[in-house]
Amino acid sequence: MPLNRRDFAKTIGIASLGAIVPNLTFGSAPSYIKNNSKKMKLSFQPYELEMKHTFTVAEYSRNSTPDVLTKIEYEGFTGYGEASMPPYLGESIESVTKFLKKVNLQQFSDPFEVNDILSYIDSIEEGNPAAKASVDIALHDLLGKLVNQPLYKLWGLNPDKTPYTSFTIGIDKPDVVLMKTKEAKAMGFKVLKVKLGRGNDQEMINTVREITNVPLYVDVNQGWTDRNKALDMIYWLKEKGVVFVEQPMPKTQVDDMAWLTEHSPLPTMADEAFQRLYDIEDKIKGVYSGINIKLMKCTGLYEAHKMITVARASNLKVMLGCMTETSCGVSAAAQLSPLVDWGDLDGNLLIKNDPFVGMKVIKGKVTLNDWPGIGVRKL
Amino acid sequence: MPLNRRDFAKTIGIASLGAIVPNLTFGSAPSYIKNNSKKMKLSFQPYELEMKHTFTVAEYSRNSTPDVLTKIEYEGFTGYGEASMPPYLGESIESVTKFLKKVNLQQFSDPFEVNDILSYIDSIEEGNPAAKASVDIALHDLLGKLVNQPLYKLWGLNPDKTPYTSFTIGIDKPDVVLMKTKEAKAMGFKVLKVKLGRGNDQEMINTVREITNVPLYVDVNQGWTDRNKALDMIYWLKEKGVVFVEQPMPKTQVDDMAWLTEHSPLPTMADEAFQRLYDIEDKIKGVYSGINIKLMKCTGLYEAHKMITVARASNLKVMLGCMTETSCGVSAAAQLSPLVDWGDLDGNLLIKNDPFVGMKVIKGKVTLNDWPGIGVRKL
Repeated sequence: MPLNRRDFAKTIGIASLGAIVPNLTFGSAPSYIKNNSKKMKLSFQPYELEMKHTFTVAEYSRNSTPDVLTKIEYEGFTGYGEASMPPYLGESIESVTKFLKKVNLQQFSDPFEVNDILSYIDSIEEGNPAAKASVDIALHDLLGKLVNQPLYKLWGLNPDKTPYTSFTIGIDKPDVVLMKTKEAKAMGFKVLKVKLGRGNDQEMINTVREITNVPLYVDVNQGWTDRNKALDMIYWLKEKGVVFVEQPMPKTQVDDMAWLTEHSPLPTMADEAFQRLYDIEDKIKGVYSGINIKLMKCTGLYEAHKMITVARASNLKVMLGCMTETSCGVSAAAQLSPLVDWGDLDGNLLIKNDPFVGMKVIKGKVTLNDWPGIGVRKL
Repeated sequence: MPLNRRDFAKTIGIASLGAIVPNLTFGSAPSYIKNNSKKMKLSFQPYELEMKHTFTVAEYSRNSTPDVLTKIEYEGFTGYGEASMPPYLGESIESVTKFLKKVNLQQFSDPFEVNDILSYIDSIEEGNPAAKASVDIALHDLLGKLVNQPLYKLWGLNPDKTPYTSFTIGIDKPDVVLMKTKEAKAMGFKVLKVKLGRGNDQEMINTVREITNVPLYVDVNQGWTDRNKALDMIYWLKEKGVVFVEQPMPKTQVDDMAWLTEHSPLPTMADEAFQRLYDIEDKIKGVYSGINIKLMKCTGLYEAHKMITVARASNLKVMLGCMTETSCGVSAAAQLSPLVDWGDLDGNLLIKNDPFVGMKVIKGKVTLNDWPGIGVRKL
């Protein structure tokens, strides 16, 4: 039985049906773009991420993270996405579900019209960055699959230039910190990120330093309020082999933060202090040395890519972070990672029930595969 | 006789050979990327562009423009590029030839590693933006052909959102201006760009206005030196339906220009005053309302795309211009045009011996086709 066009295309792995019989008559309607019979279908399901260990930052602890898995189906291809909602950021399974129910992708005839599609998504409602990212990621995964290329290739990036990723050591008692640091060392991490800001900063660092001499990132999660003490601590941290300090002071203490950045011997990285592209001009320049971009904060890959470009043009440092996420979100971010200074893409390693396989951390380095799109497979 | 893999791929129009037998084993070396037996081959030839009419700006006149056509061949696919060298910009057939002879693309195993390849091209020698653009354009054309998609689709852009393009009316005597304006009107242009700055500004505008009421862009090419007179003229131009004023004053009069922008009722657009991405921060912000991006000035599509992103984040207006070019360079720029405010992509319409067919201006609008890459075919 002869294969029909679509089955034939799938059999030999061609992305675009238009590729089989290229329509090269100038001025004629490009059938692939305009054929409205082809529709994208968005679907989603809540998914509770179970954490391997209790996760502690300056403000609270938790054992799980609410998440929503998304997919966009189109012509036999499926793009995967995800929204991860750490509670302190204000989104929830309810808010993401409510948002995604409003999304109507049927109005777009071409999944490649990313600019229009994501402008529409962004316009549905204010906020909701993780919900928006879950559509952005699935759409980008779909596009990569349609042209059968990993996103990093479509963006012109060298997969060998990915950064090492840090592994995060949460705030805990010395015995737990010792154990976790040993685990991280055994797993081959070449850099660790240590959470500070709960009054036991030196104990945390000294405990980690009992085990390893690898470079350290520190994340204070707004935990320091006195700029002079903060500066003293940064000088001490520099002596201890710390590379940069993330969100040292409350995001509201803008003047103190600008002063600290001006005097700090280490780069200061903004995290809670900003979310979107337009925040770089308004909230970052002159206040921080750089930014921590997270897909769940900035609505996804499309804006994250722009943010890297804009930050670079302003001589800002760029790190790429994540929430507690599955390999879906982390692998999506990893596609951009050859462009950044520092990677903090360990979110999937913190959970027990990852439903995807994708980007791997090999000898501490973000390691991209050659699968199309964001580079994941559903287990 | 059975087709071999490569012929089979070409017959059915698949871009990447990797698409036929996708290598989806995790962690294995992606053969398409790393197989060093596949090489890019760059070649080039000088090509004198013959102009339909003598072209006059504030400083000089000319009847032809030196040009170099490039191509990059790879695995049976050919990407086309071009360097156009209006004499006042300092490049020539000799300088471009000398530059391109130094380019060794054989060291790169994967044409998708655009970031590395173009960083290398940029590092070969200072300056030479048109020579660099001729490689950038050919590489982008090749990439689009490898995945069988127009660049605008790979960039997520809606081809319906292209701008109208202006048609340029050079400085001349009223009877010639009348004739050219009538021609432009007959060709369906919905906006004209009028060159000013040689002392007959009002005569030029009044002459054009005898024929048409379409919006006008004006390009002074640094022709005004008195900021007060410049401001008076801009108020007058606004009354005459002018939309913006390009490079009103010499690029060296930075303080005057900042003052003029602050007081001007029309946006001021920088052209001669800047070239590259880093110039936006240093030379544009606070001095001009926006920028005129030209591929031959900024080394090509990769940097132009970044410049649009950076300009947008700084609330700068963006226009996309060109030199006297073939349809190759103009079609490449047109791929980005859905992102800009104003288009000035008439360079190919000024020459008699265009060796390409590509982007068309239809009823005054930049009209993209669905051909892969930059969307051109060699005649």
